[in-house]
Amino acid sequence: MALSAGQCFAQLDQLSEDVKKIFYHALTTEQSYHWLRSLCKDVGPRLAGSPGDLKAVEWSSTLMRDLGFDTVHILPVTVRHWERGKEKAVLKVDGKKIPLAVTALGGSVSTGSRPLKAQVIEVRDFDQLEALGEQIKGKIVFFNYRMRKDFISTGSGYGDAVKYRWSGAAEASKFGAVAVLIRSVTTRADDHPHTGILTYQDAPVKIPAGALSYQAAERLEQILKKQPNTILELTLETFERDPKTSYNVVGELFGSTYQDKVLLAGGHLDSWDLGEGAHDDGAGVVHSIAAAAYLKQLGIQPRHTIRVVLFANEEFGLDGAKKYAQWVKESDTKKILLAVESDGGGFSPRGFTLDAPDSIVQKVREYRELFYPYGIYEIGKGGSGADVNQLKFTGAILAGLRVDGHRYFDLHHTIRDVFEEVNPRELEMGSAAMAAFLLIFDRLIFN
Amino acid sequence: MALSAGQCFAQLDQLSEDVKKIFYHALTTEQSYHWLRSLCKDVGPRLAGSPGDLKAVEWSSTLMRDLGFDTVHILPVTVRHWERGKEKAVLKVDGKKIPLAVTALGGSVSTGSRPLKAQVIEVRDFDQLEALGEQIKGKIVFFNYRMRKDFISTGSGYGDAVKYRWSGAAEASKFGAVAVLIRSVTTRADDHPHTGILTYQDAPVKIPAGALSYQAAERLEQILKKQPNTILELTLETFERDPKTSYNVVGELFGSTYQDKVLLAGGHLDSWDLGEGAHDDGAGVVHSIAAAAYLKQLGIQPRHTIRVVLFANEEFGLDGAKKYAQWVKESDTKKILLAVESDGGGFSPRGFTLDAPDSIVQKVREYRELFYPYGIYEIGKGGSGADVNQLKFTGAILAGLRVDGHRYFDLHHTIRDVFEEVNPRELEMGSAAMAAFLLIFDRLIFN
Repeated sequence: MALSAGQCFAQLDQLSEDVKKIFYHALTTEQSYHWLRSLCKDVGPRLAGSPGDLKAVEWSSTLMRDLGFDTVHILPVTVRHWERGKEKAVLKVDGKKIPLAVTALGGSVSTGSRPLKAQVIEVRDFDQLEALGEQIKGKIVFFNYRMRKDFISTGSGYGDAVKYRWSGAAEASKFGAVAVLIRSVTTRADDHPHTGILTYQDAPVKIPAGALSYQAAERLEQILKKQPNTILELTLETFERDPKTSYNVVGELFGSTYQDKVLLAGGHLDSWDLGEGAHDDGAGVVHSIAAAAYLKQLGIQPRHTIRVVLFANEEFGLDGAKKYAQWVKESDTKKILLAVESDGGGFSPRGFTLDAPDSIVQKVREYRELFYPYGIYEIGKGGSGADVNQLKFTGAILAGLRVDGHRYFDLHHTIRDVFEEVNPRELEMGSAAMAAFLLIFDRLIFN
Repeated sequence: MALSAGQCFAQLDQLSEDVKKIFYHALTTEQSYHWLRSLCKDVGPRLAGSPGDLKAVEWSSTLMRDLGFDTVHILPVTVRHWERGKEKAVLKVDGKKIPLAVTALGGSVSTGSRPLKAQVIEVRDFDQLEALGEQIKGKIVFFNYRMRKDFISTGSGYGDAVKYRWSGAAEASKFGAVAVLIRSVTTRADDHPHTGILTYQDAPVKIPAGALSYQAAERLEQILKKQPNTILELTLETFERDPKTSYNVVGELFGSTYQDKVLLAGGHLDSWDLGEGAHDDGAGVVHSIAAAAYLKQLGIQPRHTIRVVLFANEEFGLDGAKKYAQWVKESDTKKILLAVESDGGGFSPRGFTLDAPDSIVQKVREYRELFYPYGIYEIGKGGSGADVNQLKFTGAILAGLRVDGHRYFDLHHTIRDVFEEVNPRELEMGSAAMAAFLLIFDRLIFN
């Protein structure tokens, strides 16, 4: 449908008015913030396969039903279920015991409940690991790689450093290491260890792996300088349980005109067991629900169907997103045009990245001034998110909400990722940004 | 000096490189953050005229000397010295005592150490105060005006609501009120009252005035609905001490070419007695010091003199800034070309506002892309800051650092304004932005 210049301006004015209403509504009602409190405090941590995980499925289905979504349904997903037990790291120095704050990496095999005792060997990076070769044997490898502070985007710093968490154990085991400790992937100098998934890939032997807090890593580094033969007693008790059934939770608001065409907003419902998953990804859950609910509450009916997808088990291998992609391929009667994800936390929104052809990116950028009054300037090409990325095969435009990430890796995957660390205004700005983003696609991009 | 296009591009490339170095330096050395820790923890609160205030003068002079500033000097300022004593607000409801979190507004007269007992009357706004007229007499006026949440800029919400803090007591006393309580100027629903200065203007009688926490205001509102005749016992003990001598602290790095022309960066050294003045305005203090020090440390010598001014007593009537303006008028041998202030907290920088002719604003905006890689997009016309605004008579360009303000009024003027509420990266981004801003003026605007 081609529009005249006059129609076009009128449409832009109307959209601009509606966007203003959305931000007003978000900031004054603060519903996302109240939902997030409930998700964090009534449901709590929700590691895939845990009782909290199922509670979150129930909680979010009920919430979307109560909000008047046209349909809410759940799609079963078989998820890995891993649990942590006793965790302890103690250095023996001059007959004294020095405890170090430690947590098991997600998926780590267990040391058992009795400590593993071995000498610690510090390794800067994978190159040094290889250079040390035989000297690794029988030792606990301490990957002392610091997350770089000089990236403006903390996500880039994370991407650079996370490889030691991801495959440190697999690499070290090739040289006969008995366990691995990494320096937590953070720039924040506190005493809370950061967990996160590891992978053993094709490692011949699976060895236990944990993360030391920033401060514990500093302490260990200092001690090893003076006493390189220091013995560490490491207990990382973990349990690989039988797989469980969890669910992707899906709610829809039907479009007025194109009911079979879908604008999808999503985040992941599972969280780590430490903390409450407030920023990761409770924020994304309420952002996505709010993106639809706020439009409905304001009487703004999109022409396309808005679909909210809360993905199961992102943290432990994207089970939910993969299963969802399979469902879309085999069973979805509608066509997904756009899928936008929020998985960067409930901080001040800064923009959106688009995984789409240049022509689309350019088209969206033409409307970016709609966001300027809200301090949102960054609309450009980039990745979307781990979950919606599974939908790439559909040809849909994929997108990700970008937020101010300076504080994210202070909390990420730690006991500090709790509701109290979320600011209501910052969170609500994100909800409004998500709703506005959907509306721009509904009215201006797909027509 | 006119530049050829080639020279111009080379200069921009060099500047862009230098700006990158500045951000790198800030994020990796985190010196502002360490200075701020010391200011908050070693010096602590520094209400004008208090021992902490003088300690801060010593602390900042020493720091700038240690950093190798070319000159550091202090300029005496007579400052008002007010102190708070016992503070208590207790409602008597059905024979039960209900305590309400309260704090005296800065400059409030004292109730004495024994409570003032009177009926509370709730007033929405000044119009209602006037309408109630005679009914106000002998009562404690409760200005129950909520800071609006719908402004995107929290500063605008603050500007709208602060009038009840500023002149509520003066207005209510005209109608015979015996005291005033305001709802704290915040949107954050916690139990910490927010102080801040009041003025009695030409009020015939000065009456005590305090701020209730958000939660206390909610409680009082509920109780008054059911029992409008409720009696409040209010103790706001305060002391107006003899004026004291404090100091503006000034440090300079001499310019290579225009030593007698000055680019000034400043914040205020005093703080409220509650909290540690971490964001307000410890952040501005270290931003300003860093803006100069980081350039020096990087071997980037500006052509103009960089002057850091830490103003005395902003909170209690701008004594320092007024005195400084007088000094500039009478004694300054150099000419101030630019004065930029940081007094919005140590949050992620978003831009700068310029109080300058349109032609200058336009010129600065031409270079705004230098800031884009750092998430800084907003360069435009606007106010500068309360302190540097006193220098308007000089004809200098005045400017203010703008930061993400969503969290500011959660903490502002409360016991929560402490070092722990500052994120090192957000703070350092501000320091780097200030340094880069000075450099743009040094190289591109004044030539």
